[in-house]
Amino acid sequence: MSVIKELRDHFAEIMSLNYARAALNWDQEVNMRNYKSLDGKAKQISLLSKLIHQRETSDKVGKLIKQAEKISDLNEIDSALLRETKREYDLATKLPEKLVTEIAETSIKASGIWREAYTKSDFSLFKEILEKTVELQKEKAEKLATHPDIYSTLIDLYEPGATFDWIANIFNPIKSKIVDVVKKLNSSSDKPDNSILHKNYDINKQFELSFEIIKKFNYDLGYGRQDKSTHPFTTALASEDVRITTRTKEDFLNECIFGTIHECGHALYEMGIKKELHDTLLCEGTSMGIHESQSRLLENIVGRSKEFWAYWYPTFQKYFPENLKNYPMEEFHRAVNCVQPSFIRVNADEVTYGLHVILRFEIEKDMIEGKVHINELPELWNSKMEEYLGIIPPTDKEGVLQDMHWGGGAIGYFPTYFLGSLYSAQIYSKALEANPNLPEDYKKGEFSNLMNYLRENIHQHGSIYRANDLIKRVTGEDLNPNYFFEYVRKKFYPIYKL
Amino acid sequence: MSVIKELRDHFAEIMSLNYARAALNWDQEVNMRNYKSLDGKAKQISLLSKLIHQRETSDKVGKLIKQAEKISDLNEIDSALLRETKREYDLATKLPEKLVTEIAETSIKASGIWREAYTKSDFSLFKEILEKTVELQKEKAEKLATHPDIYSTLIDLYEPGATFDWIANIFNPIKSKIVDVVKKLNSSSDKPDNSILHKNYDINKQFELSFEIIKKFNYDLGYGRQDKSTHPFTTALASEDVRITTRTKEDFLNECIFGTIHECGHALYEMGIKKELHDTLLCEGTSMGIHESQSRLLENIVGRSKEFWAYWYPTFQKYFPENLKNYPMEEFHRAVNCVQPSFIRVNADEVTYGLHVILRFEIEKDMIEGKVHINELPELWNSKMEEYLGIIPPTDKEGVLQDMHWGGGAIGYFPTYFLGSLYSAQIYSKALEANPNLPEDYKKGEFSNLMNYLRENIHQHGSIYRANDLIKRVTGEDLNPNYFFEYVRKKFYPIYKL
Repeated sequence: MSVIKELRDHFAEIMSLNYARAALNWDQEVNMRNYKSLDGKAKQISLLSKLIHQRETSDKVGKLIKQAEKISDLNEIDSALLRETKREYDLATKLPEKLVTEIAETSIKASGIWREAYTKSDFSLFKEILEKTVELQKEKAEKLATHPDIYSTLIDLYEPGATFDWIANIFNPIKSKIVDVVKKLNSSSDKPDNSILHKNYDINKQFELSFEIIKKFNYDLGYGRQDKSTHPFTTALASEDVRITTRTKEDFLNECIFGTIHECGHALYEMGIKKELHDTLLCEGTSMGIHESQSRLLENIVGRSKEFWAYWYPTFQKYFPENLKNYPMEEFHRAVNCVQPSFIRVNADEVTYGLHVILRFEIEKDMIEGKVHINELPELWNSKMEEYLGIIPPTDKEGVLQDMHWGGGAIGYFPTYFLGSLYSAQIYSKALEANPNLPEDYKKGEFSNLMNYLRENIHQHGSIYRANDLIKRVTGEDLNPNYFFEYVRKKFYPIYKL
Repeated sequence: MSVIKELRDHFAEIMSLNYARAALNWDQEVNMRNYKSLDGKAKQISLLSKLIHQRETSDKVGKLIKQAEKISDLNEIDSALLRETKREYDLATKLPEKLVTEIAETSIKASGIWREAYTKSDFSLFKEILEKTVELQKEKAEKLATHPDIYSTLIDLYEPGATFDWIANIFNPIKSKIVDVVKKLNSSSDKPDNSILHKNYDINKQFELSFEIIKKFNYDLGYGRQDKSTHPFTTALASEDVRITTRTKEDFLNECIFGTIHECGHALYEMGIKKELHDTLLCEGTSMGIHESQSRLLENIVGRSKEFWAYWYPTFQKYFPENLKNYPMEEFHRAVNCVQPSFIRVNADEVTYGLHVILRFEIEKDMIEGKVHINELPELWNSKMEEYLGIIPPTDKEGVLQDMHWGGGAIGYFPTYFLGSLYSAQIYSKALEANPNLPEDYKKGEFSNLMNYLRENIHQHGSIYRANDLIKRVTGEDLNPNYFFEYVRKKFYPIYKL
């Protein structure tokens, strides 16, 4: 058997264990929200984590890597496979098994505790387990030490190649630019009114409609599902089983509708990976930033476009005549593009969204480096909210507790969200260059030209190309935030009648 | 560390893997009914089966068993643990890993194919994979060889200690007794009419109502769920996570209502196992027959009793006024106890049920011993249906394809269903002796005295006592079918005004 074949087989088993673990996590988030005990689940997930870790760090892998490195004529896929295998092996061998299982077990418990703290809007419930989570992540980063600073080491896990400095250099100049745009938009004398989105919308109808939307995007329900969870997410339970979740809020249409489109964007990325890569380490999005570019492209650039609503609005009017029958489409489109400071990141408009992310990026760094104590987080959160967005969350549920990420141990993840926005504008500008008629398609409920472009240029490749290489391949240059600001100006100034 | 502690820890991991595998199976049955590919799931389940098998057969277990056998003062639980460990080890070491994974993979595929064949009522789709399943089960039985005949070896997996002969000796004399009772009942000039059960009942309301019922039985939704599946089942995803499924049929109330009560009986057994046994091999029902006694006791002896309906009927009338408002309770109670030959085992009345099971018991034996060819099964099925029940299924969906068991590789399981009926009558007669007021309780929607009795005498013990020992412990004698016939006569003659 060839070395590469042996590596593939070995990692196919690891992928199966990974997928099985994802199934347990999915089950916990979707089906166990009212459970009194997550102990059994935690044991199972931590056991699978241990087994995965054992297999990733086995001597066999080390030997196979050495042998594979001697092969001079690896094709593109196999050398990417080798690169990812080496990366996984190097990372995994640095972590003691005990730490891996402890992290796994703690994250299950912390997710449950976060959910309770979130529901009750009581940060004090979450404090202790968050402190432990941070300690464990710190310990992990110190062992991995892929970068001189621990936060960069953690960031690198989600956005391979990225560092704190690289991201800070991108984010810092943007902060004031966003604030300026927000100010400018708010100077308009004809601002959109989004109160229409806060009428009463039957949650079952919302959920039903969300299925209509994902089906139009060609999300294939033969290879995935949509369910409800406390916090929406996308996860693969097999190479051919990519599931999304959503949530509904009776008095806020955005949660379900744009949340669904967002997760659908993630799912289509994973579903579009070419079969050759199935059950390998390359069978996932190449970085969280690129992943997020796909979800935000669908949610915002497409899902909040005039043309998208030209197609969907009549259906929405049929579903919710009591609210929408006499409400003009143009005003509805303006409503979903209303730019204003708000508390919840996932519901934030495209312009202020970046500020939500930057705020966390800064807090996370201080938190993981011990410069801020867990007890002080709610206050720090609120003061930064006031500084950047001019508002203070009335409860921690709308503040520091709003996201599940820290509970799950995902520290270093947040910055990738805004990288996603920036990547998406850059990628979309090229998609438009190649297919200038895309917006016309949307008017007809036709998304296949867009999907073909994304599948061809992004999705099918899985993790073959690193984020940087991919973005250069697709757009001819490095990540360039100007695309985002150009997109924002072109879109929002007319909406704000400026 | 003590030997027993080491064994417990080792098997706690195996239990975690077992539970994880159960979670994958549950997910497949509940969530993947419309999927186009089950390949990933099959790979994961077969990998977990391999890992379980490796752990069950490891040298470590063999050595620990030998050491434990030298300990002279094991307490009751530890010696039962040792007995089950030895049994598992002996069975597992006889099976080559390849066969174990092949069986696991085939059963996933076969379940999917069965579902399709069942839905389309097309036995030809199922034939090939059933043939393979039978071959694999035969091979397995030949390797295990715990009994001289292969069918007994398979039966013993579900009903430890039972053999074909032992069961045949119980079933054979009963066959004609059942036929006689059915004849006698049908001679009545005032037979119940069950057409009321075949009116239109909104399936969402049925599902809703089924939750009301299980909650009254004290099924705790903090430690389990109820969902829908093609074929109802109960499964534990952790010691504290016992889930049930049901199905609904608009024009047949029984499917959902009695199906739910049935699975609830199974679930309460597993949920009632004492904490000391959690995560051990003793944390499950001691045999499928005893398991079935708990489900059938709840479904039939309680769920089809006059007193049960005295409590529930007004609620049913509120849910379905269009059908039940003017329908007398007494007639409804007679309707749910209508004895008549029918096609579907799970919906069969208590009296003819045994014939359904005996028919399969005979067919299974011939099938596994190669005395009947797979091609001939539908015809053999139909001819036996005609012989025992006097009716011929119009389609294979209502005939040989109706159950998922063979698809899942469960050959030898069916006889335990009727053993369950027999056990249930015997156990219930003792429960009544101890609590003569039980039926009065039911009138008030009060089931805790019954549950306490069952928990105390059956549930809490898990697999500590073998079925035979347990039944003697609880009732003072071996399995005795007379209790069943006494129960049948006492109940059905009045219903049939005889």
